[in-house]
Order: sequence, then C-alpha cells, then structure tokens
Amino acid sequence: METVYFNGKFIPKEDVKISPDDRGFLFGDGVYEVVRWYEGFFFDIESHVTRLKRSLRELRINWNGPDNFPSFAAELIKLNKLENQPAMVYLEVTRGAAKRTHAFPSPDVEPTVYAFANGFVPDTESKENGIKVMLKEDIRWSRCDIKSVALLANTISFQEAHENGSKECIFVRNGLITEGSRSNIFFVIDGTLYTHPESNHILSGVTRKNVLRIAQEAGLRIREEALLENRLRFVQEAFIANTSAEVTPVTVIGGNTLGEGLPGPVTRLLSEKFDAEINSLKIRV
Amino acid sequence: METVYFNGKFIPKEDVKISPDDRGFLFGDGVYEVVRWYEGFFFDIESHVTRLKRSLRELRINWNGPDNFPSFAAELIKLNKLENQPAMVYLEVTRGAAKRTHAFPSPDVEPTVYAFANGFVPDTESKENGIKVMLKEDIRWSRCDIKSVALLANTISFQEAHENGSKECIFVRNGLITEGSRSNIFFVIDGTLYTHPESNHILSGVTRKNVLRIAQEAGLRIREEALLENRLRFVQEAFIANTSAEVTPVTVIGGNTLGEGLPGPVTRLLSEKFDAEINSLKIRV
Repeated sequence: METVYFNGKFIPKEDVKISPDDRGFLFGDGVYEVVRWYEGFFFDIESHVTRLKRSLRELRINWNGPDNFPSFAAELIKLNKLENQPAMVYLEVTRGAAKRTHAFPSPDVEPTVYAFANGFVPDTESKENGIKVMLKEDIRWSRCDIKSVALLANTISFQEAHENGSKECIFVRNGLITEGSRSNIFFVIDGTLYTHPESNHILSGVTRKNVLRIAQEAGLRIREEALLENRLRFVQEAFIANTSAEVTPVTVIGGNTLGEGLPGPVTRLLSEKFDAEINSLKIRV
Repeated sequence: METVYFNGKFIPKEDVKISPDDRGFLFGDGVYEVVRWYEGFFFDIESHVTRLKRSLRELRINWNGPDNFPSFAAELIKLNKLENQPAMVYLEVTRGAAKRTHAFPSPDVEPTVYAFANGFVPDTESKENGIKVMLKEDIRWSRCDIKSVALLANTISFQEAHENGSKECIFVRNGLITEGSRSNIFFVIDGTLYTHPESNHILSGVTRKNVLRIAQEAGLRIREEALLENRLRFVQEAFIANTSAEVTPVTVIGGNTLGEGLPGPVTRLLSEKFDAEINSLKIRV
C-alpha cells in the first residue's frame, strides 16, 4: 500500500480526495518540486526548499511548510520502504479549494499540500551513450522561472518529442535556445560552457546550479548566455541537466549529430565530477 | 445539497473525489467550457460544443461526450432547481488519472469529466455604466486558442486587475492588444469595429462570434485586426465580451478615459441588439 502526505497527514494514497474546487485542478494554480533520494540522502534538498519558497512567494500562496519538506519527504521514503533504492519525492502545493473565480480566494483558504514517493530506475543507458533531442518553438508562458503545475505546454511538447523518438524537447524563443520541457541544456563551444542565464524564460534548475559550480571548480570557462539556434553548427558538445537525468549527454539535436555523435570530453568530465560528488556524500551517510 | 456531474453520474458534490494522479491537478492538462442559462435555455450551446471538440482534438484528449453536454447541463440546472434564474454550467474534461510523467498515458486512460451548475447575479451595473480595465504585458503561452485549464497566467493577471480596482486585465503582446484574461475586447474608431482576429494568441469567444454577426447584421464596418496599444488614443469606444459579461462597455483603459467616459453609441447598439436576441429567444421558449 502506498502512503502519501496530504495536508499534514500520512495516509493511504487511495484515501486522498482532491476537491473539484481545488485551484490546482481548476486553474493549474499551484507549484511543485521533485527531489531525488540517493539510497540514504536527498541531494541538495536545501536548494529545492529555497526555490519552493520563491515559487510560493511569486504566486502569493501562503504556506508555512517548506522548511518541513526535508523531514516529511524522508518520512515518505521510510514509510514506503524506499531507503535502499533510487527514489524521488514529488511535492505539490496549490492555492487551495474555493468557489471557482479567477481572483484569489479572499480571505485566503488553506493551501492543498500533497506529496508522494516513488522508486525509480535511473536511465543509465542515456547517461552513458547520450540522447537525441528535438527543437521546437517555445510555446510556454513568460514566467517559466516559477515552477508551477500549469505544465500543459511542457507536456504536449514532451509528448511530441516522445513520439518522434527524442528524449527531450528543447525550446527556441525568438531564435534563442532557452531550455528543455523538463531540463536545462548546456553547450560546449571551443572548450567554453554555455547555458541560458537565469531569466523569466527558464526555470533555474537545482542541477543546473550545481553543474555550474562543478564546472567552475574544474576551471572551465563559463558563459551564462543564450545560444542562437543558428549557432548550433559551432557546438561540439551538449548535455541536459535535471534532478532525475543528472548530466545526460545530447548527441543529436534537431536532426543534427554533434561532433562524432558520442558524449564529448567536457560532458564526460562534468558527469564524472557530479557522480563523484554524489558518491562522496553516500560514503559520508 | 449541490448535485454535480462526475464521470457520467449525477452525484452530491461532496462525493466527488479527484485523484491526486489526475492530469488536471498535476499538469493543467484539461479543457473547459462555461455556458449560460437564461431562465429557460442555454444561449448558443452549439458553439460551445463545437469549441470543446476543437480543444479536445488539439490536445488529443479522447472523450466522446461533447454532444451530450447540452442534455447533462440541462439536467444539472433541473436537479439544482436553477430553471428560473440566471445560471451557468461549468464543464471540465481532463486527460484522466495516471502515474505522473510528462508523456501522455499509453494506452489512453478514461478522461475525467466534471460539471457543476451555479446560479449567478449578472453585473448589470457594469453593463449599464461601463468598467475600468488595466493593460498588462501578455504573459500567457502561445496556444491561447485552446480553452485549457492551465490558466495560471490568467488568474494572476486578473488578480492584479482586481487589486487595482479594474474589472478586467487586457493583454498586450508585442505592442498589440490581444484580449482580456477572461474576455475578448472590441474597439470603435470612427464608426469601425475592431477586434483581434482569430489566431493562436486569442481564445475565439462564442460571444465574440455572436457580436461580430450582430454587428454585421447591423451594417457596421468590421475589421478583425489587432490594435496597436499606441493607437488607443484614437479609440472612441471599447467593450469586452464573454458569456457572463455579454457586451460590457469599457470606459477607462490603462488609466485613460475613453470619449466622455460613458458607454458609446456603437457599444449601446450592440449591447441592445444582443439583449434583444436573448429576449426573443426567451419568448420562444
């Protein structure tokens, strides 16, 4: 039986009852986070908590629980006997349930808080050999910096990628490559690492931030600068980064093979250093 | 006790249980319609059914129920004893409940279908005297033609309007006025009626379509053409149109008073003709 967290309580999943008045259901009016459990610890859950607070603040959803996320996430791992396997915890917080109207409920209602834990099998094949990604016009809104559950643009774009055999859909806005439907993207040109700067057009990924730190520690040249789609022909390497894919090489983008079609040396270096950091934390636990 | 429609059955609202796996709740992956009941009939529900089918088709949500909407909507009116008052019926159809992943469930799962009826008090004061609206950068996605429940951009924009004493937030994209957060907008310049053409940047409103027909029958010059924000100073009249507001005059836009600050003659004419059409249908029922 799966145990989930719902409005402060740990209950069987089948007992969760989302109200049809929930603004998550009616409007996509909520935020979420996904954290990864590495057989013993969550990696950098502090950054997820910080981002969650920012998302809530931007949408003015008043929930005072973000600091409790690490503890109830760990409890979910335990209750679902996932301690010794790769797992993730998903948390969603919506503005709560109220009679349907665009305006926020006044006075505030209690936000809806729902979290579940799942074991998962890391995609090591993609991490080893790289993936194919497609390019598509960025149809999303212009507050991509908020990790909201209004993800319809992301799901239909990802589905399009999925159907043409791609593992991710990379967005292009006004000729500039922004990010993927569920990941950030990095490029290597002549040894320099490029990725879109933080802005309202990308979600500031926790893995993105850690990759940038690791790249800096490794002495790489870094430019947080958007790449023009028409400069893709100068790119030697690319990779995506997110909580579940970690550093996953991109070998084909928009039908064009990068370099030799194999993960490149800078990508391999960053992926190894990322894995080494995780492993050093595993030993410490 | 309120009776709602849920997955083919009429049940008490408190018995509705939306799954936390519902893609409406997790992703805003669903569509909706709102129809208006005029003490005896729904106005142009056929156009709502047609638009619903289009939204479902665009998102590839397979639900074969749109043609039944008029009959279960009427049943909701009856069961909730709303026959003799102004009311509306809200219908939402999501892709259904499935383990969370961006890709569509494969094979398909049953869509979630939820509808409720509510009595409402028409805002006659606004219809008579006009409203103040604000202008704001259009932060929505670029598939506004789909009537999806991923409405977060609309709700936060409407809330901003609400807080500064405006009755609607009108969006501006690349300098062009698109529409409101929950309505279409029309302008009158030297006797010609302007409104944004159908495109991926507006929702094609049922009331918009009926207003255009009525304007044509009245012999007005019509241009379905986007207005540049910086041409607002040439505008003599404006009004918004949607299912609940019908034709509602705009007297102040972005802080600037239009004409004398009173509903103008073209707006009055269209509003009267719209009301006359409704009244003629009332007599027929």
